Formats: sequence, C-alpha cells, structure tokens
Amino acid sequence: MAEHNTNMRLKLPVMCIVLEVILIILFGAFVEYHPDAHARGWHQYDVNNKTSNPDYENEFYYRYPSFQDVHVMIFIGFGFLMTFLQRYGFSSVGFNFLIASFSLQWATLMQGFLHGMHDSKIEVGVESMINADFCTGSVLISFGAVLGKTSPVQLLVMAIFEVTLFAINEFILLSVFYAKDAGGSMTIHTFGAYFGLMVARVLYRENLEKSKSRSTSVYHSDLFAMIGTIYLWIFWPSFNSAITAHGDDQHRTALNTYYSLAACTLATYAFSALVNHEGKLDMVHIQNAALAGGVAVGTAGEMMLTPFGSMIVGFLAGTISVLGYKYLSPVLESKLKIQDTCGVHNLHGMPGVLGAVVGILTSVAASKEVYGNGLGDVFEKIQNGRDSSTQAAMQAASLGVTLGMALLGGLIVGLILKLPIYGAPPDTLCYEDAIYWELPGEESGSEELASVKIPDESEKLNDGATVLLNSTGVRCE
Amino acid sequence: MAEHNTNMRLKLPVMCIVLEVILIILFGAFVEYHPDAHARGWHQYDVNNKTSNPDYENEFYYRYPSFQDVHVMIFIGFGFLMTFLQRYGFSSVGFNFLIASFSLQWATLMQGFLHGMHDSKIEVGVESMINADFCTGSVLISFGAVLGKTSPVQLLVMAIFEVTLFAINEFILLSVFYAKDAGGSMTIHTFGAYFGLMVARVLYRENLEKSKSRSTSVYHSDLFAMIGTIYLWIFWPSFNSAITAHGDDQHRTALNTYYSLAACTLATYAFSALVNHEGKLDMVHIQNAALAGGVAVGTAGEMMLTPFGSMIVGFLAGTISVLGYKYLSPVLESKLKIQDTCGVHNLHGMPGVLGAVVGILTSVAASKEVYGNGLGDVFEKIQNGRDSSTQAAMQAASLGVTLGMALLGGLIVGLILKLPIYGAPPDTLCYEDAIYWELPGEESGSEELASVKIPDESEKLNDGATVLLNSTGVRCE
Amino acid sequence: MAEHNTNMRLKLPVMCIVLEVILIILFGAFVEYHPDAHARGWHQYDVNNKTSNPDYENEFYYRYPSFQDVHVMIFIGFGFLMTFLQRYGFSSVGFNFLIASFSLQWATLMQGFLHGMHDSKIEVGVESMINADFCTGSVLISFGAVLGKTSPVQLLVMAIFEVTLFAINEFILLSVFYAKDAGGSMTIHTFGAYFGLMVARVLYRENLEKSKSRSTSVYHSDLFAMIGTIYLWIFWPSFNSAITAHGDDQHRTALNTYYSLAACTLATYAFSALVNHEGKLDMVHIQNAALAGGVAVGTAGEMMLTPFGSMIVGFLAGTISVLGYKYLSPVLESKLKIQDTCGVHNLHGMPGVLGAVVGILTSVAASKEVYGNGLGDVFEKIQNGRDSSTQAAMQAASLGVTLGMALLGGLIVGLILKLPIYGAPPDTLCYEDAIYWELPGEESGSEELASVKIPDESEKLNDGATVLLNSTGVRCE
Repeated sequence: MAEHNTNMRLKLPVMCIVLEVILIILFGAFVEYHPDAHARGWHQYDVNNKTSNPDYENEFYYRYPSFQDVHVMIFIGFGFLMTFLQRYGFSSVGFNFLIASFSLQWATLMQGFLHGMHDSKIEVGVESMINADFCTGSVLISFGAVLGKTSPVQLLVMAIFEVTLFAINEFILLSVFYAKDAGGSMTIHTFGAYFGLMVARVLYRENLEKSKSRSTSVYHSDLFAMIGTIYLWIFWPSFNSAITAHGDDQHRTALNTYYSLAACTLATYAFSALVNHEGKLDMVHIQNAALAGGVAVGTAGEMMLTPFGSMIVGFLAGTISVLGYKYLSPVLESKLKIQDTCGVHNLHGMPGVLGAVVGILTSVAASKEVYGNGLGDVFEKIQNGRDSSTQAAMQAASLGVTLGMALLGGLIVGLILKLPIYGAPPDTLCYEDAIYWELPGEESGSEELASVKIPDESEKLNDGATVLLNSTGVRCE
Repeated sequence: MAEHNTNMRLKLPVMCIVLEVILIILFGAFVEYHPDAHARGWHQYDVNNKTSNPDYENEFYYRYPSFQDVHVMIFIGFGFLMTFLQRYGFSSVGFNFLIASFSLQWATLMQGFLHGMHDSKIEVGVESMINADFCTGSVLISFGAVLGKTSPVQLLVMAIFEVTLFAINEFILLSVFYAKDAGGSMTIHTFGAYFGLMVARVLYRENLEKSKSRSTSVYHSDLFAMIGTIYLWIFWPSFNSAITAHGDDQHRTALNTYYSLAACTLATYAFSALVNHEGKLDMVHIQNAALAGGVAVGTAGEMMLTPFGSMIVGFLAGTISVLGYKYLSPVLESKLKIQDTCGVHNLHGMPGVLGAVVGILTSVAASKEVYGNGLGDVFEKIQNGRDSSTQAAMQAASLGVTLGMALLGGLIVGLILKLPIYGAPPDTLCYEDAIYWELPGEESGSEELASVKIPDESEKLNDGATVLLNSTGVRCE
Repeated sequence: MAEHNTNMRLKLPVMCIVLEVILIILFGAFVEYHPDAHARGWHQYDVNNKTSNPDYENEFYYRYPSFQDVHVMIFIGFGFLMTFLQRYGFSSVGFNFLIASFSLQWATLMQGFLHGMHDSKIEVGVESMINADFCTGSVLISFGAVLGKTSPVQLLVMAIFEVTLFAINEFILLSVFYAKDAGGSMTIHTFGAYFGLMVARVLYRENLEKSKSRSTSVYHSDLFAMIGTIYLWIFWPSFNSAITAHGDDQHRTALNTYYSLAACTLATYAFSALVNHEGKLDMVHIQNAALAGGVAVGTAGEMMLTPFGSMIVGFLAGTISVLGYKYLSPVLESKLKIQDTCGVHNLHGMPGVLGAVVGILTSVAASKEVYGNGLGDVFEKIQNGRDSSTQAAMQAASLGVTLGMALLGGLIVGLILKLPIYGAPPDTLCYEDAIYWELPGEESGSEELASVKIPDESEKLNDGATVLLNSTGVRCE
C-alpha cells in the first residue's frame, strides 16, 4: 500500500449515502410486514376457529426478549470487547456500530431473497430481525480479525460481500442440506472466523510492528473490554435459543448454553494460569476464551445434549481456546502470515469447528426414544423419515461447505479489499483512532497533533506514535 | 448570580426528605395496585367464563420486558450518555439517578390524577411504571440542556414543575385530542427539548467561557458516553413499542424503530465525515445524532409506516441532527443565547418535531383498507367514525400545544430557577464534579483542592481549573 | 500469614480442573432436564385434555426475561460494583466471574439434592437457573466483605462451603418453616453478609494500613462501579419477582421493589449530603446505599405491602445504610476488627435484617380479606389453615436460623481459609491486581515491575505500592 490518503471526507459519505439509498429503494420494492406485525394481517378473522388470533400467540412475545439480548451482544458485546486496544476504543465501538447498522439492513434483504420470500415479498418480523443480527455477528467476527488495520470504507465493502456469502452459505446449510445450526456454530462462527482470517491473510502487513506500541491494552481499556465480554457471556443462552422452536427447545437450548459457558469459564481460568510462568491470569484469555463455550454449543444446544454433555463441550472449548491464544496464534502470524488482531481463530474458529463436530455426534444419537413427540421440532427431516446418520452426514457436509465458502470468499474479498482506494491506515498508524476520529485533545499541542495526522506524510513520522500518545485524554504536564 | 453558596448540606437533604415524605403521604392516600397486580383483584372468579384469569394474560408478561429495556434507557442510557464531559461524570450519572428516582414517583401521581383514577384511586401496574419512566425521560432531556450549570436542588425543582406540565400536556394530547404518540415524539422529546432549551435560555450565562476548559470530553469519558448511546439505540424499539396495543402493534413498532435507527446511523456517519474538513468522525455526532431515528418514529412507529418509510424518516433525522450540531448549535448560542450543553435541540428537538410531522402525514393515510380489523388498535377514533384528516389535524394541534406548553412552561420555570437560592455553580466552576461531590483525590494536594472548593472564593480563582484538573484521579507527579 | 507464595500456577489450575471434573461427573449422574425443557417430557400427550401443552405455558416464557435480568445483576452488577478500587478492577470483575461460574454449577447440585429431586434426579430448568444465580449472589456478597484480601483459590474454597450452607439454610427456611423469602432478604442478603463479615473477622489483618493507598477509588474506577450500581438498581424488581408465583405476584413484587428503590435513592442522597460537613455527596453511599431498598423488600415484596409501605421501607433502608457507612463501619473495624471492604454490612446486612422484620410484620397482617383467592399463591400454609401469627413466628425463626448459620458457618469457614496454603496476598499488596494478573504495562519499567511481583520478597518492599502505581496504564513520564 504505497499511498495512504486516509481522508474519509468524500469516500465515507458517498459510500454510506449510496448504500443507504439502495437499501431504502430495495426495501420499498420488496419488504412487507410479516402477518404477525401487520395490522390487517394479524387481525384477520379465522373462519375455522370463529375467532382472531389471541395476542399472546404473537411471535413477538416468544422471541422479542431473546432478540433484545442478541441486540445487546451485537452492539455492546462485540463493540466493547474490541475496545481492549489502548488507542482504538472509538473505532472499535464506532465502526462496530456502523457496519452492524449497515449489515442488519443488507442481511434482511439477502436472507429474505434466499429464504424468506412470500408472493415476491420479503416478510419482516421479529425472526428476521434476529436472523439479520445473527448475520451481522458473522461480519463482526471477521472485523475482529482485521481490527485496527482497515478503514471504515473497507469494512463496509467487506460487509457487502460477506453478508451476501453468509446468506448463500446459510441457504445451502438450512434449506438444501436441512442441517441444524440454531446458534450458528457453523453459519456464524466458523464462517465469520475463517472468512476474516483469510481476509487478514491477504491483507498481511510485513511492517506491522511499526504500530506495535499501540497493539496492546492499557488498564482501563481492558475494563471496557470486560463489559463486552460479560454481556456476551450473559446473553449467549438467549443467542443460541433465539430462533429454536417454541417451548422446550428454547428452554433446553438456554440451559445447555448456560452450563457450557460456566464450565468453559473454569477451564479458561485454569489454563490461563497454567500457561503463564508466574501463574498469572491473562486478560486476553478471560475476555475471549471464556466465551468459547457458547460458540461450541451453537449447533447442538437445541438437541438433547444434556447439561452433562454441554459442560464437557464447554470445558474442551475453553481449553483449546486458551491454548490457541498461547501457542497457536504466534505460529499463525509467523508461519501463515495471518495477523489476527482479536484472535478470532481461538474464540470463533476452533470452537466453531468443535461445535460443528459436536452437532454431528449429537445428531447421530437422535432417536424417537430420546426426543419423543418433540423429535420433529429439532429434526424435522428425521421425523419425516431421514436416517439419523444421514442427518449427521449432512451436518458434516455443512461444515465442509462452510469452510470452503469462508476461505474462498475471504480470499476473493481480501483481494478486493487490497486495492489502494479505501483509505486504509499506513503501517505506522494501525490501531490508532486519530486517523479517522476527531479526538478530544489538550489545548496545547493540538496543532502538532493535527500535523501528524496529515496522512500522506505519516509514513515518514516514526515519532508519530509518541506524539499521539499524549492525546489519551489524560492531562499530564 | 452574585453569590454562590454551593454547599448542599441543608438544602439537598431538606429538599429530598420533604419531597419523599409528601410522595409517601400521597401514595398512601391515593395509590392502589392495578387488578393485574392485586392478589384479590387478579384472582376474582369470572362468573361468565367459570374460571379465573389465565396467568399468561396478565399485563405483566406483555409489557415487563419492554419496561425493563425502558428502565435501562432512563438510568444507564441517559445517565452515561451525559458522562462525556471530562469532569462531570459523577454528576451526570448521579444527578440523572436522583432526579429520575424522584420524577418517576411524582409522575405516577401526576399522570394518575389526570388520567388514571378509578374510584378516586390511582391504579398502578406495569403500564404506569412505563408511563412514569417516559415522563422521567422528558425531564432528563431538559437536564441535558442545562447539564453542568445547575445544582441538584435546582434540578429537583425543575423536575417538580416539568413532570406536572408534562402530565397536563399529555392529558390534552391523548385524552382531549385523542392524538396518537406512543413513543412520545411530541409528549416526551419535543416537550422535553423545548422546555429545557427555554430554561437554558433564561439561565443564560454570559461568562460561561470561564468553564470552557471543562466543557469538552476526554478520551475515556467519550467511551463511557458510548455505553449510554448504544443502550439507548439498542432499546429504542422497546421504548416506542412499550405502550402500544398488544400483538401486531408492539411487533410493528419495534420493527419500524429498528429500521429507522439503522438508516439514521448510516446518515450520521456520512454527514459527520462530510462536515469535517479532514473527513474525520466526530464523537458528538455519533453519540447523539445516531439516536435521532428513534425520536423521529416516536409518533408514527405504531402506524403502518412500513420499513421503507421508517428508513426514510431515520435517514432524514440523522441528517438534520448532524447538521444541527455543526451549523445550528453555534448560532443558537451566539444569537439566541441558548447554551445547550448536550445539544438536545439536535437530538430531541428537531427530530421530535420531524416525528410529529411524520405522524400527521401517516395519520392522513390511515384507512380501513390498510389497517383492516387492526384499525381500532391504532386509531380508536377513526375506527369510531372520525375522519383521517381530522385525526391529522388533531396531531398537528398536538404539536402546537406541546411547543406552546414547553416554551411557556420553560420560561416560567426558568425564571423560578434563576432565583439565587439553589446553590448553582459559579461561572468558573460549571461542568465540575468537585463542587457537589467528595472526589477521590491524591493524598498530597487534597488540602489545596479543598480550599479551591470554598465556593464564595471561587470567583477569584481563575486558576481553579488548573488545580482541579489534577484530581482526575490520575497520579502524575 | 508468614509466607506468601501468591504464585497460582499450580494451585488455581488444579483447583479449577478438579472442581469442574467433579461437577461434570455429578451432573452426569444426577441432572436431568425439567419436563418443560425436555423434548419428550414437554410433548407428552395429555390424555385428560386431549392435547399437549400449549407453548405459551412453558415456564420459560414466564421467567426467562427475569432470569436474564438476574444474570446481568450477578455478573455485571456485582462485578462492576466492586471495580471502585483503583487497582483491583481486573480482580473485581474477574474473580466475580470465576466464583460465580463455579457457584452456579455447585448450587444447582446442592439446591437440587436438598429440594429438587424427582426420582433421584435433579430436574433443571429456568427456575433452577434463577435459584442457582440467587445462591451465587450470596457468595458474591461475602466476596464483597473480603475483597482485595483473598486469593482466587481461597475464594473458590469459600464458595464450596458457602453454597452448601446456603442450600441447607434455604431448605430449613422454605421447606421446614415454610417461611416466605422470594427476594432473599434472609436467605441471600442476611446470610451472605453475616457469613462474609464473620470470615472477614477471622481473616483480620492488623497491618492492612500498609495497603491503604490502594484501598480507595480513583475517578474512573468510581464510574465503572456506577455501571454495576445502576444495573443492580434497575433489575432489582426482576430479582425480587423472579421466582414468585405467576401473574399478580410477579407483577406486584416488581412494583413494590420499584417504589422502594426510588424512595431509597432520595433518602440516600439526603443523608449522604447531610453527613458530610461540606454537604458533598459521597460516591460510596450512592453506589451502595441506594440499593438497600431492593434488599429490604426481598421478603415482603410479594406480599400486599402496598406501594406506600414499600416506599417507607425503602426510605428507612437508604437511611440506615448511609448512616452505617458513615458511623458504624469505622466502629466495626476498630472495635470488632471486621474489615468490610465493600461495606456489605450496610448494604446487605442491616437492610437484610430490616427486610426480614418487614416480612414478619407483613405476614402478621395476611388475611383472606386482603388477598382474596390469591392468598394461597403467597401464603400456601395460611391458605391451608396456618395462623398468620404462626407464619410470622416462622418468619422470625427464619431470621434467627439464618443469622446463626451465617455466623457459625462464617467462623468455621474463616478458620479454614486462614490456613497459609491458598496464596493470599501479603498485607502490603492487598487491593492489588498485579499479584494475580498479567497487567498491561509501559514498555519501560516493566522489568522493575516484574521484580516487585516476586511474592516472597514483597514483604520487604514498602515502596512496592509506588512502583506499581505507574502501571495504571496511563503514560506519564
């Protein structure tokens, strides 16, 4: 990347306005309220029952509380989790906010076109809101891999493609293979992680160590990140159960996720202390690996995994995640040239694959004996005659397709993002809010700061980092 | 304000205790549980149906999750949004906490007296909790206009009057005009904003630039503020849908708000970058303007606005809000002498008026064709024969009355608040926690700090700011 | 404590892994899904009604939103409330996270064994999740008393015993005495507080003033703590109503708690300003005493306490809590040698006892006239013939048993925790994250820091505090 004009004055507004205008036009042409949200639709008199729908059966009441929890995870959870960087808090929360706001609209269309059309209209309701948030989650996982090294325009371009590919992959898994993946171990986590890792691979920066001083956390930024972690952890049971079938299915999925996460947390603390020569806990592990238990029951959470099974899965997930941060991430960077800022491979990649495998194994064990009359709610196809081993094979095929789509898609999108037209930061100014944000500064010194920020000159400014560090907003003379 | 005895030792306790004792007496005399919350009331045997109420029909289950989201917005959302000031975090969250706790009790009574009496008793339940929180929201909006320039006693006095006027205005709109305003574009946002702006106008401080150094943010305070922003944004669909009719109405309102906010966020980022000569994003815009989309569908959100319409409204709201911050706010201060600390005119004022106008336009289009049997849930009066253009006229009249009540009320209350008896801060010590809070300090230097804080001397201390800055709690020797 | 090997490299992993393996084995042997969460169980055809269960009657929909609010209180509320210490934020949130994750699993077993067995299986569902979180809350209250002076291993040992004793005490109160205590004034708050205070008494440190410089807050840490406070305050109505009977009972409990907290907040501000000679508000009071209103209606909240009664209780609770912080805590430390870090005696101890007393008084007034057909939902035993004064006597006996169990249990567990094998911090390094956490540091100076952290030498390092203060993550050269 020879030239670095990071000035967003035209690029970002043009991008945002054009995208939003397209979204509005497409929504105008294709989007309609779901009958449960439509004044005329909901109040239709049912001739058979001689009555209209009772309000408590509106889908809203079954799913809206879960939706709100998911919404917190997407905007607070992911947003604050990434504020751990000392000088990238504005961008972490702010770009998360931007690309999530775009992605949820775009996902509504893409998912609608692929598997939500009724009479050539996309019907939106609480389920489509949840699904759009889920797809957005996948984009945010990929964002974690390239955090600090990308411009907001680049991220929006990534989101356009990733949302589209996500919807295609989801369509294949759920509507072609009839695989089960309610919490998205495959569709969300595996896809988002490997897509993001491949993008990060293509965008590899040889001289990233020039921004090394800003790639770590400070005390308060780690506390902000813990807000994200804890909210993700708390609401993961809602995430995995948000679109499972009513009744026992939502109930069971929440339970399984709750126990998996609790077991995962103990594994995380155990291995975090174990891999440190002074026995000290590492915030990176606590902030991330403790969540792997939610990822790893994303497929099997709705199944009769039992609390016992969930805890084993959670414990394994926490263990591999910590070990991944400690031993695998450095190798990924040095050997495979993948600079994975947030370690999404450890939090979403490996635990996502684990979750897919657990889903395969739990599907094999599905039977009328275990599920009784509830079998069809979980495994519609098995209820209708499909063999449970066929189901398991379809689950396995789904993992394969997901990995393929993610890696190939990430490769192509990475190449698109490599074009030097998006205003990506120079190697010396990665992980730095000051490029894209008007920062609150000291009265004195703000002129010097302004000069540093002239993007075309920034390559030469090796002392830029030092100067900029003064504007942490803390006044120390 | 010649004299500034900011010592709250008598004023605040007397105020709080007297108010709470009055509240308790009035609650004892007038407040009763709603039948849905009353042991005897809920379990009455229904002779017609030969049964008592099924539990799932208790209003609690339809509204409590929405209430909790609203509650988060009032206490976390508003509270933390205002922590953006570098030295006013304690007061922002703390005074927000105080006046909200008072206002919700007082609002329960005022709203109850005006439109909630049954057999000379006010019946309280989950709906009255939501309505009380809504009224409180209006007070907190006004608080945003005078933030940093008022004492807690002054704010409580403001709340007493504002809650009362809010309830009267709400009564006129909803029970006289039968206007629709479920999310409060008019009753909450327009009223709260213009009331607060008028109070700020009356309390104009010519020498406020003496506190200029403290009127901006620092890096971490902006991150705290983002907690408030994001929670407001996430839960706004619950806010607008909290008291709409059961079923499709709540469902549709949540959808409309969700899409409006998403579109608004893209407009906010676009125009924030566009109006900055370096193309940099401004945290003030992101923290505030991105929320204008929720304000602007506060009236029409429950109507058949369609996602398409909601997105257009949201996009417009974000646009005018950013432009307001950039170009209008400086004019308001220099020409109209309105010092609007949080820019509530841009976040609640203009978007609130826009929301009212959207409500007028959407009401005109109301018809049996569009709403089917659901018409009465949204427009009871149209269902019963009122013309839709009459409905629109009533919506317009409601906007007029709201603006009139807000401006006249704000003028009178502003004059009351101008009395030099409430311990307001001197011009040199606005936006400063140290006047009203015991601050954590360094061991050394705390004596000097204490002396600075003697209020009567503070006018002379132009170097007060510098001394105080040392107690940000950061240890720099 | 002569020797202080605070290295956790073996102790913590062994502890966590052994505990989790035991938990997993016991869950495998004893835990089964509740029929509402079981695929076969929920879909059983009901021969009498010729139908299976309608989904909206699944317990999940009655309680899951409340559960999520409780979950936020346990992990965000308690976790961040304790981050007020300037150098103990990682440990506050992080150890809270660890011991809560352990306790909720262990509590599921202990509560299950004592009062949740069906056919020698523990049936888990949303109610058992809530109950496990409640028990965890009690452990976290005790954690507040010993905060900053204990190692994570010590805390896990405490949790093992405290959860067990909690379950026994709860069994006696609810299943032997048939006392009512839905929000846990006795079982959770009184028990957790006095247990923790007794542990703190046994672990008394004569030379704790060596860590005095770190025992206070800084500006930003107080803001982080306010996140915890406000979330606890907002969601307390959900906490108290989470396991009350469906319908009016949950509804009424939420109302009572809402009004109690609002009144408590005004009392807190009044007395906080009154007891300070400059009339300044104290963050310690606001962060804690404002919550006492929730504690104090934990027993009577589900009863027909009326909003009027709730507000009186809340006002009293706030008052005694502030006065406790100001006048009683210093005496507890100097005379009774109880070093109560978070002042749990003022927030949970006294208000918990007040709540128990209010429960006794409200039980006495229970009658068929007041409760109608709803009597049995609140007072099953009175409905079945027990005298209301007998109920009150049982409530009183419950308070006595709880205090006895807490004090005796705390004494014994305190003695167990006094063993010098858990890696507790030395007196010079209490309230210090650096012992147990890999802290983000400056590039320069990190070697010096490392040397300070050699635990065996730390006793000699009286200047340790100064050196460590540089690693607040703020760069001041």
